Amino acid sequence: MPTRLPGNLRVDGDRLLSRLAALAKIGNTGDGGVRRLALSEEDRQGRDQLGAWIKETGLSLHIDSIGNMVGVLPGASDGPAVILGSHIDTVATGGKYDGALGVLAGLEVLATLKDAGLTPKRPMAVIAFTGEEGARFAPDLLGSCVWTGDMTVDEAYASTDVEGVTAGDAIRRIGYVGTLAPGAIKAHAYLELHIEQGPVLHAEGGGVGAVTGVQAITWLEVTVDGEPNHAGTTPMGYRRDASYAAARLVIAARETTRDIEGQVANCGYFVAEPGNVNVVAKRVVMTIDLRNPSDARVAEAEARVRAVAAEVAASEKVTITFKDLARFPAQPFDPRLVAVVEEAATSFGHKVKRMHSGAGHDAQMMATIAPTAMIFVPTRDGKSHTPEEYASPQDIVAGANVLLAAALKVAHE
Amino acid sequence: MPTRLPGNLRVDGDRLLSRLAALAKIGNTGDGGVRRLALSEEDRQGRDQLGAWIKETGLSLHIDSIGNMVGVLPGASDGPAVILGSHIDTVATGGKYDGALGVLAGLEVLATLKDAGLTPKRPMAVIAFTGEEGARFAPDLLGSCVWTGDMTVDEAYASTDVEGVTAGDAIRRIGYVGTLAPGAIKAHAYLELHIEQGPVLHAEGGGVGAVTGVQAITWLEVTVDGEPNHAGTTPMGYRRDASYAAARLVIAARETTRDIEGQVANCGYFVAEPGNVNVVAKRVVMTIDLRNPSDARVAEAEARVRAVAAEVAASEKVTITFKDLARFPAQPFDPRLVAVVEEAATSFGHKVKRMHSGAGHDAQMMATIAPTAMIFVPTRDGKSHTPEEYASPQDIVAGANVLLAAALKVAHE
Repeated sequence: MPTRLPGNLRVDGDRLLSRLAALAKIGNTGDGGVRRLALSEEDRQGRDQLGAWIKETGLSLHIDSIGNMVGVLPGASDGPAVILGSHIDTVATGGKYDGALGVLAGLEVLATLKDAGLTPKRPMAVIAFTGEEGARFAPDLLGSCVWTGDMTVDEAYASTDVEGVTAGDAIRRIGYVGTLAPGAIKAHAYLELHIEQGPVLHAEGGGVGAVTGVQAITWLEVTVDGEPNHAGTTPMGYRRDASYAAARLVIAARETTRDIEGQVANCGYFVAEPGNVNVVAKRVVMTIDLRNPSDARVAEAEARVRAVAAEVAASEKVTITFKDLARFPAQPFDPRLVAVVEEAATSFGHKVKRMHSGAGHDAQMMATIAPTAMIFVPTRDGKSHTPEEYASPQDIVAGANVLLAAALKVAHE
Repeated sequence: MPTRLPGNLRVDGDRLLSRLAALAKIGNTGDGGVRRLALSEEDRQGRDQLGAWIKETGLSLHIDSIGNMVGVLPGASDGPAVILGSHIDTVATGGKYDGALGVLAGLEVLATLKDAGLTPKRPMAVIAFTGEEGARFAPDLLGSCVWTGDMTVDEAYASTDVEGVTAGDAIRRIGYVGTLAPGAIKAHAYLELHIEQGPVLHAEGGGVGAVTGVQAITWLEVTVDGEPNHAGTTPMGYRRDASYAAARLVIAARETTRDIEGQVANCGYFVAEPGNVNVVAKRVVMTIDLRNPSDARVAEAEARVRAVAAEVAASEKVTITFKDLARFPAQPFDPRLVAVVEEAATSFGHKVKRMHSGAGHDAQMMATIAPTAMIFVPTRDGKSHTPEEYASPQDIVAGANVLLAAALKVAHE
């Protein structure tokens, strides 16, 4: 039994691609997309398939009380495992790769070891977290929040979907209440392969992303209250124009991205009321999404927007109120593990880009309890959460081999 | 029979106020407001009441094919009449004064002459135009457009409400298809008393407005098409952000009001799609309302907004398309008649303000066929088209007496 594994080990790319294709048939929406909402009947079928593959690989299958599924490959010694994973739920109009890639590539890494008759020094595991997307049950990252202790099982069970079904009832209904205690399988390290879901790698000609962390997110809902005056008879000086004041905030949010390093900003929701061409808007409700890899810099961006709001409220005689929709601090990944990913990718001759993740991932929860890193592969035109979501077979297999190499490295430390 | 009428003639304020109150009971919404949509059952009841008052005053009642109602007081000589009027239809959430004041004050002027046994040199008439508001049948100014020949009776009949009822059927249903040819009673002059519907006179401590004309109106619908990218994973340089681009246009519209004399601007409608906090808006549909007493200056304002749109479309890689919703040129009133109104108001000791009308009125159509002017009285806080619409009894009676004096002046030219 070798304590160092051969450097020329490679995943079975065909098996990985065929499993990705097979899983994508479950919840197939007929337009290239996948709808496999957390804890739905489609999710149950996907879980059944995943469980069958885990067993077929010769791993022991464990399910915890929130439905997280874990396949374990024992190591030469006991102790915390090198865990590879992601999720298999999708948004309502999801694609084939978001989540599924990380789970099936993790399984493929373990299957590759099994096929080669190799036993890693440390235990290894593949995990599929429940309800990462938050598309049916809030919050997102539900399964990994429970796994890491950020949320109790009972809190998670109480989450309801739009039809009033609780997550607890939904898990029972699909038969996925397991006996494993969440988090019971300790992590020596956590690695997650994922499509980038952004345009950068694709636009820069491909390669692999060594993800340095998940950026901080601040979501604000802003309500601007003015007065619904006649747009013809009211001189400008008498107006309390909610549309104009809110537009100033959209501009202010954008300006933070020019002035603050690493800052992105979005105002995705904006509705003026009553919405008549000839009536000054009495109210605008809008959202501001601010993200930055640095907590301090995202706070600076928010402070700048709020300062403009105070100025605009005074000059336009409107009332501007802010409500927090979400606040997540930045979650840096483990620098040593990021370097392991980078070295693994480089060893295969890939161009590697250190980059932060713009989206949230289960890895950000795992990073709170274990050294964590992620691997990104290019996403065509950055499109995700859509039937058009696409990653090339070459990039998928390349990413899985980087996952394999990085996982073996830490499994043999 | 005097050819000059006594300067101390005054309207019967109590009668005018009690008729205003009585008419407001028809379509009373219980909250101080009035709903008397054009050609509705409530409008029929209001018309019946008005017709009864016209006959009670001893005037001949004439109804034309679009339902415009005219009460005529013969003059000492034949020829074109001095016509006083407005409309009695309201918007869905209307007030007691918009329109009704001009019709009932016009009737009160004629009743005052009748009571005094006086015959004016020229014929005089009061007119209630059909469907000024456009709240049920488009366009607004329907009755006055037909009266002045701007629209044919058949075109007006073909206008449909949201339930598919044509204006023609609605007029027949309430029994108000008359035999008078629209416009058959020629106008020597047209005078309309109206509440200001804006805040200026009230804020400046009252007085009377001598209205110099109706400003030009340009209504644009703007569609901004971008791309619905992920608000976390898409670097700013890759975005095609419809919200940001549209906000720039809101700012551009406002800036015209700082740079261009007499300009007002409004963006009352603004909706971002798909409207998710974390998705870059793929589309914004918004409206821009530009008004100016000068046609050239409103065109300059539009040109500036379109120039900014071209710049923003290029820099933000979005598509911006403009659609005309409405275009009305400025309609100046007759300078000599405006001076007559001003002198009449001054003769009563009122503070007089020359001002343009920010809203549209039947007078703007009448101005295309006869010397026309309007008289404004203060509107509390500028509120109109709402149950809160209010003009004080003192201001109403003052306005009616200015109408009387101005009308007598031109009726004896």
